[in-house]
Amino acid sequence: MNSTIKIFDTTLRDGTQGEGISLSVEDKLKIAQKLDTLGVSYIEGGWPGSNNKDIEFFIRVKELSFKHAKVTAFGSTRRKGTKAENDPNLNRILEVGVAAAAIFGKSWDFQVHTAIQTTLEENLAMIYDSVRYLKSNGLEVIYDAEHFFDGYKSNPEYALATIKQAEAAGADWIALCDTNGGTLPHEITEIVKTVCQNIATPIGIHAHNDCELGVANSIAAVMAGARQVQGTINGYGERCGNANLVSIIPNLQLKLKYDVISADQLASLSSIARYVSEIANMHMPINQPYVGSAAFAHKGGIHVSAILRDSSTYEHITPELVGNKQRVLVSELAGQSNLVFKAQELGLEFDTNNQQTKLLIEQIKEMEHQGYKFEGADATLELLMRNAYGMLEEIFTLESFKIMVTKSAGQPVLSEAIVKLKVHGETVYNAAEGNGPVNALDNALRKCLKKHYPGIQHMHLSDYKVRVLDDKNATAGKVRVLIESSDFKNAWNTVGVSENIIEASWHALVDSMRYALLSQSRTSHQPEEQREQVGLVNH
Amino acid sequence: MNSTIKIFDTTLRDGTQGEGISLSVEDKLKIAQKLDTLGVSYIEGGWPGSNNKDIEFFIRVKELSFKHAKVTAFGSTRRKGTKAENDPNLNRILEVGVAAAAIFGKSWDFQVHTAIQTTLEENLAMIYDSVRYLKSNGLEVIYDAEHFFDGYKSNPEYALATIKQAEAAGADWIALCDTNGGTLPHEITEIVKTVCQNIATPIGIHAHNDCELGVANSIAAVMAGARQVQGTINGYGERCGNANLVSIIPNLQLKLKYDVISADQLASLSSIARYVSEIANMHMPINQPYVGSAAFAHKGGIHVSAILRDSSTYEHITPELVGNKQRVLVSELAGQSNLVFKAQELGLEFDTNNQQTKLLIEQIKEMEHQGYKFEGADATLELLMRNAYGMLEEIFTLESFKIMVTKSAGQPVLSEAIVKLKVHGETVYNAAEGNGPVNALDNALRKCLKKHYPGIQHMHLSDYKVRVLDDKNATAGKVRVLIESSDFKNAWNTVGVSENIIEASWHALVDSMRYALLSQSRTSHQPEEQREQVGLVNH
Repeated sequence: MNSTIKIFDTTLRDGTQGEGISLSVEDKLKIAQKLDTLGVSYIEGGWPGSNNKDIEFFIRVKELSFKHAKVTAFGSTRRKGTKAENDPNLNRILEVGVAAAAIFGKSWDFQVHTAIQTTLEENLAMIYDSVRYLKSNGLEVIYDAEHFFDGYKSNPEYALATIKQAEAAGADWIALCDTNGGTLPHEITEIVKTVCQNIATPIGIHAHNDCELGVANSIAAVMAGARQVQGTINGYGERCGNANLVSIIPNLQLKLKYDVISADQLASLSSIARYVSEIANMHMPINQPYVGSAAFAHKGGIHVSAILRDSSTYEHITPELVGNKQRVLVSELAGQSNLVFKAQELGLEFDTNNQQTKLLIEQIKEMEHQGYKFEGADATLELLMRNAYGMLEEIFTLESFKIMVTKSAGQPVLSEAIVKLKVHGETVYNAAEGNGPVNALDNALRKCLKKHYPGIQHMHLSDYKVRVLDDKNATAGKVRVLIESSDFKNAWNTVGVSENIIEASWHALVDSMRYALLSQSRTSHQPEEQREQVGLVNH
Repeated sequence: MNSTIKIFDTTLRDGTQGEGISLSVEDKLKIAQKLDTLGVSYIEGGWPGSNNKDIEFFIRVKELSFKHAKVTAFGSTRRKGTKAENDPNLNRILEVGVAAAAIFGKSWDFQVHTAIQTTLEENLAMIYDSVRYLKSNGLEVIYDAEHFFDGYKSNPEYALATIKQAEAAGADWIALCDTNGGTLPHEITEIVKTVCQNIATPIGIHAHNDCELGVANSIAAVMAGARQVQGTINGYGERCGNANLVSIIPNLQLKLKYDVISADQLASLSSIARYVSEIANMHMPINQPYVGSAAFAHKGGIHVSAILRDSSTYEHITPELVGNKQRVLVSELAGQSNLVFKAQELGLEFDTNNQQTKLLIEQIKEMEHQGYKFEGADATLELLMRNAYGMLEEIFTLESFKIMVTKSAGQPVLSEAIVKLKVHGETVYNAAEGNGPVNALDNALRKCLKKHYPGIQHMHLSDYKVRVLDDKNATAGKVRVLIESSDFKNAWNTVGVSENIIEASWHALVDSMRYALLSQSRTSHQPEEQREQVGLVNH
């Protein structure tokens, strides 16, 4: 049997039904280009019949050229008791001028009665007429059989009859939808097999994750004969989300050896998954399979010492195949082997018996006790380690800072900061405004450092996160501030902890700038491969 | 075949290997009690051989009495070339005085060579001696066959030989571990079936989520004959986590009709899952299957109008079975039916044709455009809706506030706030300190309101979240502040958006207090079922 699987991405349509997700037309165009790079076959861009934003997408997407993907419009079968050619919804699909359309119809007798409130016969006609109408206008048609599995369980004959209508009308694909996400893999296997015995048209699967089985159901369907998988990047979608293509693709390709996308495309999976989470402004779970920053992160001391011997002992694939990488976490649980590993990364000579090392480990344990976590703040950890070995110069010392935030009725808030530092023996004193207290502090600090460290202007803060550590006491609790910074070539994370959000931010800010200047001085006059090593000599 | 499934929870042991998770002994004791309430059969509390914190847990847990759960200690088989009775690791297990022990040994020939570097024969002896030693000391013994599936694929005879040693030595359970999480459900099915044909001892499954198949693999194993499922609450654990019991339990019980826990225990699932995420200080994903706040949340306009007719059209189970509830989200995508639904919840007479309603919808769209999200801030939305209908009195008007944060070298940061309000025509003017600028503002605001609204002292802020909306520009970007507040009986969420974190916090703070006073005035003199209705009359 043909081992090629077509990926149908609906991040831009079904994905935007997820809570907290809302994409502008710009966002959608950016994501569409990445999806094409990833090698998906269909990009479902939206529902032209439902809103103008989606129509604008279909108009503007024509300016882009895609290598792999067909832009696809979504819609429903014609309304009951009307003619397909008079259905505004279907005509919108033709008006936006797409190569392919995915239209959904009812498979579940119960739904026909309750949701669209018509007869079983009229529903069959609605399916036939709608598919036929789009086909006669030259479109490739994917028929989405909504609630197919629930429908099949309730009335198998009728469920099959609905998709036979779509087939008779010339549908190119019939996608079986587990709309409520309540079906289990063994049911998917059995039902998809039966469908494949009764239908010649190629079958697709559209699964949801309500039982945490979206990926398993998609794979079960493919193994039972489905050749198209519908899903979204990172599993975005209504309720518990759609089936997560980011896990499905490597499972099909690396584990089951289907032809899905090329090896290069697969190697872009992690960066594309992260890109989409950035554009969608959704936090990517660190433990997301295959692509999360913790997916190949090792914490347990035992595991780490084994990893140092042979990484296949605790990794199911080579992370680089999906563009991810191995990480070793430092934590109280870890034992020293993690620090040894981290030191190797940094090119530090790490002798677990010497006094500096013992003090460093004590310091890290104490800071973790206070609420620090270095797992997400490699730069702060590196600074600590370099400092412990006397390989870090102090770029300045703080004399004082003062922040004022003032608000009068009807006026915007005014935020000002005054910073006083000693830099190379010189006292520097500067004030700055900002959009907020931390931004004002950031600006004043940069002003103070600019003269002695001009390189500071090349870096900027790219993300700022605040976590309250003691929820019992919210604004009075300890807070952990994580800052992500980047310059033209690197990104790094720093952390600060305090009962005061400003002080926590200050610590993370200062570490971020120290790290920026450290890596700049390293990279400025050294070839790539010597960076770490020379970093030590410099400091 | 026996349809009873025993749940083996390892949240306190394997779960703590997850990145960002670290539990104090206090935390572990609190969680253990909840696990017993949930009805799990085994609570793996830690590894006494690995650290003193775990030993302290086993000592202190004896003060608690459990209805269902056996406290279980984790450990490994004896070291190579030693006697079990001299193995410190095994003796620690006996010393802490538990009823059950789970010890892991190697199943994978490759691992025997690389990880523990001994002979295949010695590994068999290590398994036999260790199980035997614990059994002869009267413990119930669960033998964890580490890497069993990888081992079986590499050398089935040897993998089977290892668990036959455990059986011969009298193990009560043999748990097959997919340690790397790389195995697929159809492989689990086949291998577990074979094992059940070769082994009389009851079988358990220990799956990980590296392929996003942890839940599917656990279910596949049970359907193939396994009768114990090992996993963690919310799927916490190393890398991509352990199999998520919070999804496995309802899948087995509601979908496959196994006997797992009682209906009452199942109805506590959502609250226990949230409780554990609070204690572990891990953010619970809103889209988490069964228990997430979005698991039964509906956004799409079509879905919502169908839901209003019959909720089974888009819900795979009744949310209350797992202690969750249906929610309808308001968003640009939603169409008016969502607002109608929300209005019904609030007992508002919502006429989509009247002018107030049109203005309200415009206002909500405009605020969403600015970065507001009401999906996580029902209280702010309710205030907007009541306000639109003139059913909300203004509790005060702001004249001005000023915040000062001062830091001098070596000194702690000092945060002060001055707030000037008009309350019922009276000008109130107060200053307060705080652990941070927002806390100082919160304190000063309460001082100002206390006299006219004594009820304010009953509420407190229980969580405070900051989200940068425009990551390109971090500390200068727009921020959304989400505040969760609670009093003795309710919890509610409010939101504020601004380029200035202080102003955003101010909006969320003020809404939180307005809502607190609103609901207090409602509940103070009205029976439960009339609250909403009367709330309108009062305001």
